[in-house]
Amino acid sequence: MLPFARVTIVGLGLIGSSVARAVRQAMPTVRITGYDADPEVRAIAERIALADDIADSAGAAVIDADLVMLCVPVGAMGAVAAEFADDLPAEAIVSDVGGSKASVLAALRAVLPDATIVPGHPVAGTEHSGPEAGFATLFRGRWCILTPEEGTAEAPVARLRAFWEALGAQVEIMTPRHHDLVLAVTSHVPHLIAYSIVGTASDLEEVTQSEVIKFSAGGFRDFTRIAASDPVMWRDVFLNNREAVLEILQRLTEDVTMLQRAIRWGDGDQLFDLFTRTRAIRRSIIEQGQDDAKPDFGRSH
Amino acid sequence: MLPFARVTIVGLGLIGSSVARAVRQAMPTVRITGYDADPEVRAIAERIALADDIADSAGAAVIDADLVMLCVPVGAMGAVAAEFADDLPAEAIVSDVGGSKASVLAALRAVLPDATIVPGHPVAGTEHSGPEAGFATLFRGRWCILTPEEGTAEAPVARLRAFWEALGAQVEIMTPRHHDLVLAVTSHVPHLIAYSIVGTASDLEEVTQSEVIKFSAGGFRDFTRIAASDPVMWRDVFLNNREAVLEILQRLTEDVTMLQRAIRWGDGDQLFDLFTRTRAIRRSIIEQGQDDAKPDFGRSH
Repeated sequence: MLPFARVTIVGLGLIGSSVARAVRQAMPTVRITGYDADPEVRAIAERIALADDIADSAGAAVIDADLVMLCVPVGAMGAVAAEFADDLPAEAIVSDVGGSKASVLAALRAVLPDATIVPGHPVAGTEHSGPEAGFATLFRGRWCILTPEEGTAEAPVARLRAFWEALGAQVEIMTPRHHDLVLAVTSHVPHLIAYSIVGTASDLEEVTQSEVIKFSAGGFRDFTRIAASDPVMWRDVFLNNREAVLEILQRLTEDVTMLQRAIRWGDGDQLFDLFTRTRAIRRSIIEQGQDDAKPDFGRSH
Repeated sequence: MLPFARVTIVGLGLIGSSVARAVRQAMPTVRITGYDADPEVRAIAERIALADDIADSAGAAVIDADLVMLCVPVGAMGAVAAEFADDLPAEAIVSDVGGSKASVLAALRAVLPDATIVPGHPVAGTEHSGPEAGFATLFRGRWCILTPEEGTAEAPVARLRAFWEALGAQVEIMTPRHHDLVLAVTSHVPHLIAYSIVGTASDLEEVTQSEVIKFSAGGFRDFTRIAASDPVMWRDVFLNNREAVLEILQRLTEDVTMLQRAIRWGDGDQLFDLFTRTRAIRRSIIEQGQDDAKPDFGRSH
């Protein structure tokens, strides 16, 4: 049995368009309705037939949905939910794919006080954006985290789990607060550091941008990939997961300062110990199928 | 005409074994001699026929070479050169592949006062180590930086340039000091930060290692690749390029602190501006063939 029969996707960028494609592939009889605030994106979505219907307003999009999946930047969740609040069917489940969960839950609850809301976050993506960047297999083998409020009934959570599993994801359930801390570590602070290091490198006077680009294969280019991710999405993540990001960033700063001191004082053993320990983590990530086992991510050589 | 007829490679890890394979492929008539301080590595090199000859000592390895290429960690360069100093033919050119150049030049010059030394650094690699990790195409399309001392004759530099170009690399020439600053930006500080972030993540009490691994596709896994690089090689790089690494790290810390403040005070515009600027750098790296244009580095999905 299909977990949902009529799925509405609000926001048709990388993730929203990937959800649409994955639903089409995994559950071809599901009726998909799409909506995006940007008329240009709606036109592209029509052209590439991303959904059965592309609605002209958020309200029209949700009117007969049994699942409304919000795929907009986390800072825009509350506003778009307010737009369709009056048209939302009472039995519909509202979910989302945002990278911060406590803030999204609060924003949605404020404008949808009586709705069934089960926030979610598929931990998957690429550095590309827009409706044409998505693909059906994006969630395959990745984890999707659901963060239901305390007191949420089991049935809607189970249906959403079945939905993501049908798209190829594995599902884990945790509190919004714990999600926000875990993702600060595994996603938000890495992105912040990547953005920062790319910024620092391009601002130096003694090293030209052309040199930075030429010699980027030394490691720098790895950081430029995630630093090419969608600017609005990431601005919103940092503003909406402030506490956890600042906490993890503080920990990282302490650890970097310790390494800085080890370098200054020539403490090779301390460096060697850390550099040995970190290899094991990489091995586990590969063993658990969370990255490509091929050297250099399988880049072509 | 071949730039060299008898090439000796000292150190048969990822880079040394890649040089051997690339020479074999590009210049099949060149006689290759290999040496590694580790008898186990020598045995593997024999078994996989990495060279025409695997010598039992550094001295025996260089005795009839016209190019001696040192592919050992930068902290080991001086010691290994001292080992073969008495056996080095007067007309041989000594070069290396080390990631720091001022320190290597000083170490080699101290024990080889009269030799022709042209330090080099192919900016290429993977996170794997050892004689079996190398491959012939590693240098193709990458840059190799040569850092001759002031007053070095043109001929040996030109021969070394021809050598690297034959292996598929592009060659750039700069001073050792400038190399060390450029690489601090494009390689050393990125590696240090990657090592550090992986260390920080695995030391948290509130987030388990299993969670860090599961949800690593959010960005973290990108950092684990370079944090899986050879610990000895990288310890040596940091100890031998201390000044430049500390200088760039200081710049990065200032920039991260500014972002930290922007997050704390909710300054979304500042975040958005940086995140937009960094996208352009990624585009240039791809346009100039220094990274895979496919999303997610071309990882399989």
